[in-house]
Amino acid sequence: MDLKISPSVKEEITQIVGAENVLTEQEDLMCYAFDAAPGLSKHMPEIVVCAQSKEQISKLVQLAAAHKIPLYTRGGGTNLTGGALPVANGIVLSLLKMNKILEVDAENLTATVEPGVVIYELLEVLEPYGLMYPPDPGTVNTATMGGSAAENSGGLRGLKYGVTKNYVIGLEAVFADGSIARFGGKTVKNVSGYDMVSLLVGSEGTLGIITELTVKLIPIPEYRRSMLAVFDDLDKAAQAIHDIIAHKVIPATLEIMDKFTIRTVENYAKVGLPLEAEAVLLIELDGIKEAAEKEAGIVEEILKENMATEIRVAKDDAERDAIWAARRAALPALVRIKPTTILEDATVPRSKVPEMILALKEIAAKYDLTIGTFGHAGDGNLHPTILTDEADKAEMAKVEHAVDEIFQAALELGGTLSGEHGIGLAKARYLEWEFGEAGVAILHKIKTALDPDGILNPGKMTAV
Amino acid sequence: MDLKISPSVKEEITQIVGAENVLTEQEDLMCYAFDAAPGLSKHMPEIVVCAQSKEQISKLVQLAAAHKIPLYTRGGGTNLTGGALPVANGIVLSLLKMNKILEVDAENLTATVEPGVVIYELLEVLEPYGLMYPPDPGTVNTATMGGSAAENSGGLRGLKYGVTKNYVIGLEAVFADGSIARFGGKTVKNVSGYDMVSLLVGSEGTLGIITELTVKLIPIPEYRRSMLAVFDDLDKAAQAIHDIIAHKVIPATLEIMDKFTIRTVENYAKVGLPLEAEAVLLIELDGIKEAAEKEAGIVEEILKENMATEIRVAKDDAERDAIWAARRAALPALVRIKPTTILEDATVPRSKVPEMILALKEIAAKYDLTIGTFGHAGDGNLHPTILTDEADKAEMAKVEHAVDEIFQAALELGGTLSGEHGIGLAKARYLEWEFGEAGVAILHKIKTALDPDGILNPGKMTAV
Repeated sequence: MDLKISPSVKEEITQIVGAENVLTEQEDLMCYAFDAAPGLSKHMPEIVVCAQSKEQISKLVQLAAAHKIPLYTRGGGTNLTGGALPVANGIVLSLLKMNKILEVDAENLTATVEPGVVIYELLEVLEPYGLMYPPDPGTVNTATMGGSAAENSGGLRGLKYGVTKNYVIGLEAVFADGSIARFGGKTVKNVSGYDMVSLLVGSEGTLGIITELTVKLIPIPEYRRSMLAVFDDLDKAAQAIHDIIAHKVIPATLEIMDKFTIRTVENYAKVGLPLEAEAVLLIELDGIKEAAEKEAGIVEEILKENMATEIRVAKDDAERDAIWAARRAALPALVRIKPTTILEDATVPRSKVPEMILALKEIAAKYDLTIGTFGHAGDGNLHPTILTDEADKAEMAKVEHAVDEIFQAALELGGTLSGEHGIGLAKARYLEWEFGEAGVAILHKIKTALDPDGILNPGKMTAV
Repeated sequence: MDLKISPSVKEEITQIVGAENVLTEQEDLMCYAFDAAPGLSKHMPEIVVCAQSKEQISKLVQLAAAHKIPLYTRGGGTNLTGGALPVANGIVLSLLKMNKILEVDAENLTATVEPGVVIYELLEVLEPYGLMYPPDPGTVNTATMGGSAAENSGGLRGLKYGVTKNYVIGLEAVFADGSIARFGGKTVKNVSGYDMVSLLVGSEGTLGIITELTVKLIPIPEYRRSMLAVFDDLDKAAQAIHDIIAHKVIPATLEIMDKFTIRTVENYAKVGLPLEAEAVLLIELDGIKEAAEKEAGIVEEILKENMATEIRVAKDDAERDAIWAARRAALPALVRIKPTTILEDATVPRSKVPEMILALKEIAAKYDLTIGTFGHAGDGNLHPTILTDEADKAEMAKVEHAVDEIFQAALELGGTLSGEHGIGLAKARYLEWEFGEAGVAILHKIKTALDPDGILNPGKMTAV
C-alpha cells in the first residue's frame, strides 16, 4: 500500500480544517471505503477531512497538489459506479458539513445551496413556496446536491423534466491549482464563456470540486395522476410506451418492471403487485388539472388498445404513493435475493427498449444468469440487475461476459454506457467502446488541462 | 496584412474540396468580411472554402494546423457579436453546402442534421410530424443549425422552452488536430464521459467544428394564445412580469418594448401599436387548450391588476401573427434610424429587469444617447439598442463608455455579459469582468487543451 500522508502533511491538514474535522481511526475510515455501487472492492482512505468552506478546500487542494496526493470528494456516498472510492489511497474530502441552503429566490425561481445539502432537505424547504427541484434520484433522501450534480443524476421524472444538468445554472468550484471561480448564475439564459457549468456537472469530481450551486426551480405541478397497467406480454407493454409518445403525450414518469422484478418487489414489500403479470407500467401525468386529466384519458385508451389486462388509477394520494413505493422498492428488493447485485444503466433510444429487453433476455439465457429488469422505459434507461454471488468465481466470470454484452447491445442500438449512474470506476474500461480512440483522447485532454497532476478523483471516468 | 495562404497551400485546399468550392476573388471574399454584428469593422478572408463532408473538414484542419493558418467556420453569418469575422486573415470555412436533414426520428423525438441546415427548413420538415424544434432566434429564416448551436442561440421561446443547448443532445465534431469524434446521441439521458456536447454548443467555433447534430424535438403545442398589453408606466409593466411568474405561470413568450421602440416599430411597420404607451408586453401562452386558456385567464387578471390600459387578445392566427411580427420588427426598425446600431444582450435575473431598465435610462441620459430597449423580459434578457453614427467620433467615445456601464450594471445585478448573442469579438475584452482572472484562466486552459495552436476562430471568446 503506497501511502501518501506523512505526519507533517497530516499536521498541515489539521491546521487547515481543525482536529475535529480530521478522521484517521480505522473504524472511521472504514465508513469511507465504499459507496453504494454494488459488487466493487473496498478501498480505505488514509485520512478523511470534512471541509467547511471553499477557502479550506482551496488550501487542501494546494496541499494535495504540492505533494501529489489523490483527493476524493464525497457527498452522501450514494454513487452507484464507485465514483467515491479512494482507489489510490490519499484523502477523502467530505462536504457533508457544507450543508447550508443559502437562498431560495422565489422571484427568479432559483435556489442557491452548498454542496452538502441533501436533495430532500431542499425539497422540504421549497414546498411552502409551491416550488420544486425536479431531479429525483432514487436516493433523494440521502444524496447531496453536490454529489448528484457531480454525477448528473437522473431519476423518475427524467422523461418530462430532464436530469440534474438541466437544472444547475450556476456554480462555484475549486480547481486543481486551488483557484476558485464561478460560472453561470441566476439568469435562465447565459452564453458567456464556455459552458463550464455543464462540463463540471457530471464530471464525477475529476475536474473540480463544486462548492456552491444555483439551481433552477419550477412550480409544483398542481395535479398528479398516477396509474399502474398490467400486461401479460412484455411486447405489448413496450408497444404501449411507444404509442403514448407517438400520441404526443409526455408523462412525468413512465416506468417498467418485468416479471422477475414484480415478484421480487411483491415478496419484499407486499404492495399488491400482480404476481402473474409479465410486465407492469407505472405512469404519472402531471401539470394543470384539466391538461393532466385529458392526457391521462389518452393514456388509458392506449393502454386498453394494447391489451393491458388491468389498469389501476390511483384514486387518492395514498394510492398514488403506493404505486411509487412499489417502484422505489425494486432495487432494495432485488439486492436481498443474492449476495451480490450488479446494477447497470445502459441506455438506448426510447424506440429500442423492446429490442434491448429482448437482448437482456438472451444474455440472461446464454449465461444462465438471473437478470431482473426495471427502469425508466420512457427514457430508454433500463436497469438490468444481475443477481449473483461474488464468492462464486465461475458465475462471476459469466457475469463479466454478460455485462460486456449488455454494453455492446446498448451501444449497437445507438445507446450509451450510462443514462444516469455515471462511469466512475465500474465502467471506465468501456469508455473507448462508446467514444472511440479519438473521443477518449478529447476527454483526456480536458482532464489533463484542468488537473495536470491527476489529483482529483484519479482512476475514475477517463481513468487518468 | 499578414497573409497565410501561399499558392501551394491554395493548391492543396483545391485538391481537398475541388476548385468549384474555393473562392478567392475580392468580390466573393467581400461577402464573408462581415456578419450581422452591427458596428464592427470588416475583415477580408484570404480564401473561402465550402466543405461538403467531415473528411474534407478534417483534411482542411490538418492543413491549417500544419501551416498555422487561422480557420473561421461560418454558417448563415447571422452572428451578432462578430464571431464569424476572419480577424487574422486565413480561411473562412463555409458549411452552407452541408445542408442535409439526415433523419427525423418521430419515435424518439429527435432530428439529425448537417450543420448547414437552416433552422426554418428543419421546422418545415417537422411540421407534418406535428413536431417542433423550440429554439427560435430572430433570424430563424437564415441562421443555420450549426451556427446557432455554436452560438447557443436563444430566441422568443426561451422562458418556457429554453435555448439551443437544451435541445442539442448529440453531435459529431472535427477537432483542431483533425480528429473526428461523436458525443451524446439520441438518448434523452446520457452521463457517459464529460459533457462535450454542452461544451461545444456555445463555444463559437473555437474548440471544434460541428459536422452533425442530433436535436431533441417536442410535440407542437396544440394551442397558442397571444396577447398584447399596453401600459402608461414602465414600472407597472415590470411589476406585471413579476406577478405572472409569481403566480406560477410560465408563458412560452413574455416580451417587452419601451416607448422609443414602440414608436420606431410603428413608424416602420404600421402594425397598430399604441404610440402613447410607455411600454407594451407581448405574451404567449401555449400547450393543451384547457391549460393555456386557464393560464391566459390568470395572466389577463394580473395585467388588469397592474393597470394595463388596454389588453388585446389575438382572436385568430392573423391577429396572433401580427403581434409577433411587431416584436420581430423591433431590430429592423431600430437599425433604420441612425447609421450605426449597437445592440447588446446583457442579461439579468428576471427580478432585476426593472432595475436594469432604470439603469439603462440613466446611462442614456448621462451620455445623451438614444437607447431603445426591447427584449425577452421574462428571461431577464433585454436588448438595449444604442442608435448612433460611427462617423461621429465624439459620440462613439460616449457610446463606448455607455456600453461599459451597461455591462457593469448587468454584472452588478447578478447578470451576465450575454444572454444569447455570445461573446465573439465584441465582448471578448469584458470576459474578465464576469469571470475574474481565475475564471478566465480556466476558460483559457480548455481552449489551449483542444486547440493548442489557436487555429480555430482565433481572437474570439477567450481572445486566444
